[in-house]
Amino acid sequence: MNYSNNNDTICALATGGGMSAIALIRLSGPQSLQIVNNIFSKNLLDKKSHTVHFGNILENSKIIDEVVITIFHKTKSYTGEETIEISCHGSKFIQNKILEILISNGTRIANPGEFTMRAFKNGKLDLSQAESVADLIESESAVAHQTAINHLRGGFSKKLKLMREKLIDFASLIELELDFSEEDVEFANRKQLKNLVNEMHNEISKLIESFKLGNVIKNGIPVAILGAPNVGKSTLLNTLLNEDKAIVSDIAGTTRDSIEDELIIKGYNFRFIDTAGIRKTKDKIENLGIEKTLLQANKSSIIIYIIDVTLDIDQQIKDIQKLEKRDQEKIIKVINKTDLKIDIKDKIENSIYISAKNQNGIEKLKEKILDFTNFKELSNHNTIITNQRHLEELKQTLKELDVVIEGLKNGLSSDLLAINIKQSLFHLGLITGEVSTDDLLANIFGKFCIGK
Amino acid sequence: MNYSNNNDTICALATGGGMSAIALIRLSGPQSLQIVNNIFSKNLLDKKSHTVHFGNILENSKIIDEVVITIFHKTKSYTGEETIEISCHGSKFIQNKILEILISNGTRIANPGEFTMRAFKNGKLDLSQAESVADLIESESAVAHQTAINHLRGGFSKKLKLMREKLIDFASLIELELDFSEEDVEFANRKQLKNLVNEMHNEISKLIESFKLGNVIKNGIPVAILGAPNVGKSTLLNTLLNEDKAIVSDIAGTTRDSIEDELIIKGYNFRFIDTAGIRKTKDKIENLGIEKTLLQANKSSIIIYIIDVTLDIDQQIKDIQKLEKRDQEKIIKVINKTDLKIDIKDKIENSIYISAKNQNGIEKLKEKILDFTNFKELSNHNTIITNQRHLEELKQTLKELDVVIEGLKNGLSSDLLAINIKQSLFHLGLITGEVSTDDLLANIFGKFCIGK
Repeated sequence: MNYSNNNDTICALATGGGMSAIALIRLSGPQSLQIVNNIFSKNLLDKKSHTVHFGNILENSKIIDEVVITIFHKTKSYTGEETIEISCHGSKFIQNKILEILISNGTRIANPGEFTMRAFKNGKLDLSQAESVADLIESESAVAHQTAINHLRGGFSKKLKLMREKLIDFASLIELELDFSEEDVEFANRKQLKNLVNEMHNEISKLIESFKLGNVIKNGIPVAILGAPNVGKSTLLNTLLNEDKAIVSDIAGTTRDSIEDELIIKGYNFRFIDTAGIRKTKDKIENLGIEKTLLQANKSSIIIYIIDVTLDIDQQIKDIQKLEKRDQEKIIKVINKTDLKIDIKDKIENSIYISAKNQNGIEKLKEKILDFTNFKELSNHNTIITNQRHLEELKQTLKELDVVIEGLKNGLSSDLLAINIKQSLFHLGLITGEVSTDDLLANIFGKFCIGK
Repeated sequence: MNYSNNNDTICALATGGGMSAIALIRLSGPQSLQIVNNIFSKNLLDKKSHTVHFGNILENSKIIDEVVITIFHKTKSYTGEETIEISCHGSKFIQNKILEILISNGTRIANPGEFTMRAFKNGKLDLSQAESVADLIESESAVAHQTAINHLRGGFSKKLKLMREKLIDFASLIELELDFSEEDVEFANRKQLKNLVNEMHNEISKLIESFKLGNVIKNGIPVAILGAPNVGKSTLLNTLLNEDKAIVSDIAGTTRDSIEDELIIKGYNFRFIDTAGIRKTKDKIENLGIEKTLLQANKSSIIIYIIDVTLDIDQQIKDIQKLEKRDQEKIIKVINKTDLKIDIKDKIENSIYISAKNQNGIEKLKEKILDFTNFKELSNHNTIITNQRHLEELKQTLKELDVVIEGLKNGLSSDLLAINIKQSLFHLGLITGEVSTDDLLANIFGKFCIGK
C-alpha cells in the first residue's frame, strides 16, 4: 500500500460495517467539500467549519439517502485537511452506494490508518500519539483505555521530546567544538552533559521497565488454572466468565464479542488459561501435555491451583509444593467442591474455599486475584509504555547513552561522543516521529483499521 | 417494552457494534443537552443548533475520550426533541463507558426504534414513513432501497392521506345528514361520493396488487435451480455467488455478511434455491425430497432447469416437459458441461449453453434471468407496497369500500353508509398513523434496531 500520496482526497466508512441505525463516511483532502457539494442537494461551499447540514445525496438527481453533512475546514479538522463527514442510514447498500458515488466523483478509498497518518504528517499528532489512537480503539479494559488515552494526550511524547531537545542543544555545542577542533575548546559543559545523559538514562530505564506492566495491561494479565484432572478447572473458568458476560450485556444492551478466556475484574483485563490436568503418568504423550502446562504456568503472572476436597488432599498439596519451588509467589490455592464435602478437618493455609458449581466464594477469589496483581507498580510509573516498537527504540537509545556515559568518564573526544549522541537522538526521534521513513509509516498505519 | 413514556431522555449506540474508527452515541429528550454538558469539558449550553464541538468526555475529571459533539435543538432534530450526538473513538470499552456515564447522569437506554417512534409522535414522520426507515436500513438491493426511500419521502402516505381527507369530508356531511335524519336531506352528493369511493377502490386495488412485486423486491426474487443429480446445480450456484462477492468487496473494502444464496443482479435481489436432484426412483424417502423440490419450484418466480450434455438429453427433456405443464413460462433451460462435450447435434430450443465450472455463458444466463423477471410491472406501479401490515389494512379498507359501493347502488341510508365509511377511514388511518394504539406502536418499533 502506498502512503506517500497526500494530495488527493480519500474516503472511507468510519463506523462498524453491517447494518445499523447510522453509518458515518468520512472524506479528507483538498477536494472533500467540492466533491460532497457536487452530490448534495444544497450548496455547502459557503458554509462555516463545524456546522451540520441536512439534505440528500443525489445520483443523477435520484435520491440515494437523506443524510447529515458535517463540515470541518482545513486546519480545524482531525487530519488537518478539509474534512467532511456524511452521516447516512446504516444500510449496507447505502454505505456502499455512497462510497461508490464518492469514488466516481474523484476520491479514493483510504488505506488503513490513512486519516491518522495525514493528521501526523500535518502535525496534528506526533507519531507515538498516532499509534495510541489504534491502542485506544482496541482497548477493552479500563486500565488499557487509561494508558492509551494518556499516550494520546501526549504525556509520554512530551517527556521524550523534552529530553531530546536538551540533548540536541548539547549535540550542537559539540558539533561546534568539532569546527574548532584544533583549538581544543569545550563549548558543551561536560558536567552538565553528564548530568543530562544520566538523567535520561534513568528515565529511559524506567520506561523500559514499565513495558512489562504495559504489555500485561494491553494484552491482559495471564492467569493459569492448574490442578489434577476433574477438580473443576473448566467449571471455575465458566463460572468466572459467565458472571462477567451478564454484567457487560446489562450495560450496553449489546452482546460482547467474547474471547472465551478474557475477563475484566475491576477494570483490569485477565487472560485465563485452562490447562490440562496434572497427574502422575508414565504415558509419554500425556507427559508432554503436562510439560506444556507447567510452561504456561511459568509464563503466567498468576497461578490458580485447584485442590479437590473430595480427592486425596495430601497428594495434591505435595504436587503444589513441587510447583512452589519456582513459582511460589504466584500461586493462589483454591479449595473446590466445598458443596460436596463441608467438613474439612485440617484447614489448608492461605487458601480460598469455593464451590465453582454453586458459585460460592467466587467474589473472594476475584479479590485475591486482584491482590496478587502488583498494581502498586502502576502508581510508581507516571508513564507506562505498551508499544513493542517504542520498547525497541528505547533500548537502542539506552545502548547509545551507555556508550556516551562511558565516553564521558574516559574523556572521549567530541567527534566520537557526537556519533553516539546523534544515534540516541535518532532512535528517540523515531518514537515521536521527528525522524521517520515511508516504510516505517506504512508499517505503523497499515495495522490500523480502515476509516481511522 | 414500554414505549409510552416520551418525557425522559434516551440514549443509544447508533452505529454498528464492535471495534471501529468512530462510534456514534445519540441522545434525545428534554435533558439531552444539559446531561452532555455536565460530562463535557466545554460549556455547550449557549451553542446554536447544527453546530459541532470538539472536547473531552469526563468522569470525575478523568478524561474518558476525546469526542465531537453535535447539537440539534428541539424541533430541528430527527426526533423533534433536543438531540445530541457524541462521536467517539470506536472502542467497545469507550462506547460502553460513555453509555454508562450517560445512564448515571439521568438517561436510559432507548428501546428499539424509540428515536423514530418519537419522530413519529412529534409529527416528523407519519407511521408508514417511520416504517420505511427500517426498510431502508435493511435494504440490500438497489430496487429495495429505491422503494424504501420513496416511502420515506412520503409518496405512498401522501396518496393515502389525500384519499382519506376527501372521504372524511363526505363522512362529516353524512354525519350531518344523521342530525337531520327526520328531514331526509342529502348533504353528501351521492354521485360525487360514488365517484370518490370507486376511485379509491381502484387505487387501493392497485396498491394491493403491487404487493406481490413489493414482497419480491423486499425479500428477493426466488429462483429454483432444478435438474437431475450431479448436473452441476451447486457448481452453478457457487459460480453465480462467487463472482458477486468479489465485486461487493472491491467497492467497499469490507466483507459482505453473506446469506449464502442471495445474489444481486443489476440492482435486483435474487434468492437462489439449490434443490435436491430430480430422478426417477421408487424410494419413498427420496420421492418426498423430489416432491419438496417441485413445491419449491412452483413457489419460485423463476426455475433454472439444468440439462447435462454428457447425460441422456432426451430423458432430461422429458422430465422438463412434465414440469412445463404447470410452470412453463417460468423455466429457463440451461445446458451445462459444454466444456466436456462441445459437439451437440440437435440444438435445444430457447436454452442457454454454459459451463458452470469454466464460468462460460454465465453473463448470458444472468441477462436471461433479468429478462424473465417481469420488471415492466415496476413502471406500471407508481407506488409499490412492501409492508405486510399495510397490505392487511388496505385489504380491510377495500372490504369496507365494497360494502359502501354496494350500499350506494342500493340507496342505503346515511346511518348505515356511515358505519362502513368510518371503518375504511379507520383502516387507512392505521397505515399512516392518524389512528394508532400503544400496542401497535410497540409492535412496529419493537422490530427496529436499537439506536434508530
